[in-house]
Amino acid sequence: MPESPRRTLKLGAVLLGVGGPGQHHTWLDPQIPTDASVDVRWYIARAQEAEAAKFDHVFIVDSQFITPDSPNHYLSRLEPLTLLSAIAVHTEHIGLVGTLTTSYNEPFNVARRLASLDHISGGRAGWNVVTSGDAGTAGNYSRDAHFDYATRYGRALEHVRVAQGLWDSYEADALPRDRERREFLDPTKLHALHHTGEHFRVVGPLNLERTPQGQPVIFQAGDSEEGRDLGAAIADAIFTHAQTLEQAVAFRTELRERAAAKGRDPQNVLIVPGIHPIIAETDEEARARQDAALGARSFEKALAELGRPFGWHDFSQYDLDAPFPSVAAAGALSFRTQAEGITRLAIEKGWTLRQVVQHQLDAGRSPFVGSPLTVADEIQRWFEAGGFDGVNITVNAPGDFARFTDQVLPILRERGVVRSDYESTTLRGNLGLPVPENRYTAARPEEAKAASLVP
Amino acid sequence: MPESPRRTLKLGAVLLGVGGPGQHHTWLDPQIPTDASVDVRWYIARAQEAEAAKFDHVFIVDSQFITPDSPNHYLSRLEPLTLLSAIAVHTEHIGLVGTLTTSYNEPFNVARRLASLDHISGGRAGWNVVTSGDAGTAGNYSRDAHFDYATRYGRALEHVRVAQGLWDSYEADALPRDRERREFLDPTKLHALHHTGEHFRVVGPLNLERTPQGQPVIFQAGDSEEGRDLGAAIADAIFTHAQTLEQAVAFRTELRERAAAKGRDPQNVLIVPGIHPIIAETDEEARARQDAALGARSFEKALAELGRPFGWHDFSQYDLDAPFPSVAAAGALSFRTQAEGITRLAIEKGWTLRQVVQHQLDAGRSPFVGSPLTVADEIQRWFEAGGFDGVNITVNAPGDFARFTDQVLPILRERGVVRSDYESTTLRGNLGLPVPENRYTAARPEEAKAASLVP
Repeated sequence: MPESPRRTLKLGAVLLGVGGPGQHHTWLDPQIPTDASVDVRWYIARAQEAEAAKFDHVFIVDSQFITPDSPNHYLSRLEPLTLLSAIAVHTEHIGLVGTLTTSYNEPFNVARRLASLDHISGGRAGWNVVTSGDAGTAGNYSRDAHFDYATRYGRALEHVRVAQGLWDSYEADALPRDRERREFLDPTKLHALHHTGEHFRVVGPLNLERTPQGQPVIFQAGDSEEGRDLGAAIADAIFTHAQTLEQAVAFRTELRERAAAKGRDPQNVLIVPGIHPIIAETDEEARARQDAALGARSFEKALAELGRPFGWHDFSQYDLDAPFPSVAAAGALSFRTQAEGITRLAIEKGWTLRQVVQHQLDAGRSPFVGSPLTVADEIQRWFEAGGFDGVNITVNAPGDFARFTDQVLPILRERGVVRSDYESTTLRGNLGLPVPENRYTAARPEEAKAASLVP
Repeated sequence: MPESPRRTLKLGAVLLGVGGPGQHHTWLDPQIPTDASVDVRWYIARAQEAEAAKFDHVFIVDSQFITPDSPNHYLSRLEPLTLLSAIAVHTEHIGLVGTLTTSYNEPFNVARRLASLDHISGGRAGWNVVTSGDAGTAGNYSRDAHFDYATRYGRALEHVRVAQGLWDSYEADALPRDRERREFLDPTKLHALHHTGEHFRVVGPLNLERTPQGQPVIFQAGDSEEGRDLGAAIADAIFTHAQTLEQAVAFRTELRERAAAKGRDPQNVLIVPGIHPIIAETDEEARARQDAALGARSFEKALAELGRPFGWHDFSQYDLDAPFPSVAAAGALSFRTQAEGITRLAIEKGWTLRQVVQHQLDAGRSPFVGSPLTVADEIQRWFEAGGFDGVNITVNAPGDFARFTDQVLPILRERGVVRSDYESTTLRGNLGLPVPENRYTAARPEEAKAASLVP
């Protein structure tokens, strides 16, 4: 089919408090209050700045398991949906994307909370679907072991389908609320889902009417085979990583092909990697700033953090200058792809443990480093080469974020790469995604009637 | 022990949109927008009015199961915690009490969401603990049948204990966040719970530090034997109903005795019934207003609603003038006490189905009807006689609520029954409840050390 005219570059801002993995040093940054991760005013101010710069959305990551070695931001932070609801009523245009795990939540509760956020925000809710990588999470939810990989992804797919089904419970005009005719509800337009699957059985209907967006926007991350397959099936937008343009183009091409193979229009699957631009007056100064930031990261913290994809395996017990130890089994259920990738690379390169840790430290290097013009050029180059449809900016310090919005964005805007104002009242509209038709409205009248709650 | 000086009357406002059970007519009230139940601005405005009147808290009720016959407000409403977070950032002083069921939520998620609300609001979060009365709720959560009564209440008790344990994960000074000393966390003050019980196994710790209130305030409702026992064990405040002063005094006396028997100070268990004052210039006018409101309620809706405590049994199939039918089994798991009470009364009185419905309609009569002086006198009389420690006002229409705040409260304030301003920054403080000591801080140093996550 002929490709639609290319849309403009989409912009998200990942809001963190004191910094996630690989950002241990950020809590020392005087621009960031040390209690930012639990300060709602900090998040509201950051979201308002992103909105002033016409960003499409803010993005809140999450986890539910900590040890004393967890990144500082993970140790104590606000629950994403609770936080986003507070942000919703102090912003007007910006989308609000929150992470909720399908492994340790009920689809009825997830569907309801996201639909509530969509109503509260007037159509700006998004759901970042995750399956929880840390095996230890199971211990906080009355389980002996984490769900195995296949189960996690099967459960995620079914969970999202159930939520989407519940979001269709009410047709758009099911609540006439006509005082004259004493008609609050038209019961023929309220539908039960009657879902029975491998992981969930949910009768419905949802106790909340159709939302301003029709359905909240679905984000998804996951680089594994199962993760890519899930994203191609359900995601409106895919959050990923991008280290080189070649990798980015390959990833986007593959995801679009997978989506098309599932009968979807690839235009409606946006690839939106997280990027960390480092900007200064000159390219040299920006590179020096990156070197300083990487230098501030502690080798010991990186060694501890290396254990995470291996189920928090303790690598400090090994000789740093011996070959990378074989630690396969413990990681089978947790961040499997990441752990396997690290091990494969170490074997291929014949690296010691020290070299692996150093490589992990170096992987923090951003491809978007330089003067405002250099960074704008590079982002445009990746965008036009098909490396991404949008970017999630992971810059947390207000001054550094302002450098991007005040110095890089004007260049991209003048070139028409980025739009100059919001085009819609909803996140879905600003991302250029279609409103999903309600399954009962779309159905033939007889089928809709059969699914209705009244004969 | 000698009784502490009596506190002032506590004030809560139950915020509804278009009206709950027995309030079907309220959606026709032109003071209330027909979509109030999903309009965050409606709720924020009501909370701000209650705050201007120095109310201690707003209160959001909930359920997770609907049929086309459900009360209009139930059909489509916002999820309580999502809503309260939005209210939190548009108010400064008022407490925020949200309903969450222990039957269909995980304690880790509940503890985290409430602690997040407590941080976002600066110490104003409350949890109304319920177990879900509608048996149909089970069908929305992959269960064939609702938990039986004993399981529901056993689960509720354990659920609250786990949440309270998780809220103690961090001691108050566990996060020094000292940049000079590079000390973000003091790991000796972060504790895992390692809970293993009949219903839940939760390792912890919670990924959120101790909240401004120490622990969110626990509300509980439930008139059954199991409900009273749970309230006496866990509740800081008990939401109940009050039809006569004698019943109210008996209920409060019993609950205080139960709490004392469990080793608690009864001063710290507040009895706070919902009341619905109807106020006019004169007593006659107020009574006429109540009659008109009750007359507007439909017999047919009351007949349909009668089925709710019997598991939505359809009573329209019976002869209205035959004796009240025996419908025990279907209601065994659902609102059991309420269904049993109705049946017992019908048998004692020898009532027909029509008489039972009429009685249910009449039970909507408020004991607090009259001029501002009459209503103030009656509230003071009940308070001083030990009928309650506070009241949850269930008046939803803004004009009617303003009659209470502008005409009744000044009388009670002048008499010293109600305080004239907030006395604390937290809900717990305004309710006069002590801050629970962290179990690890309270423990002897060796025990705290044994529970610490680091040796």
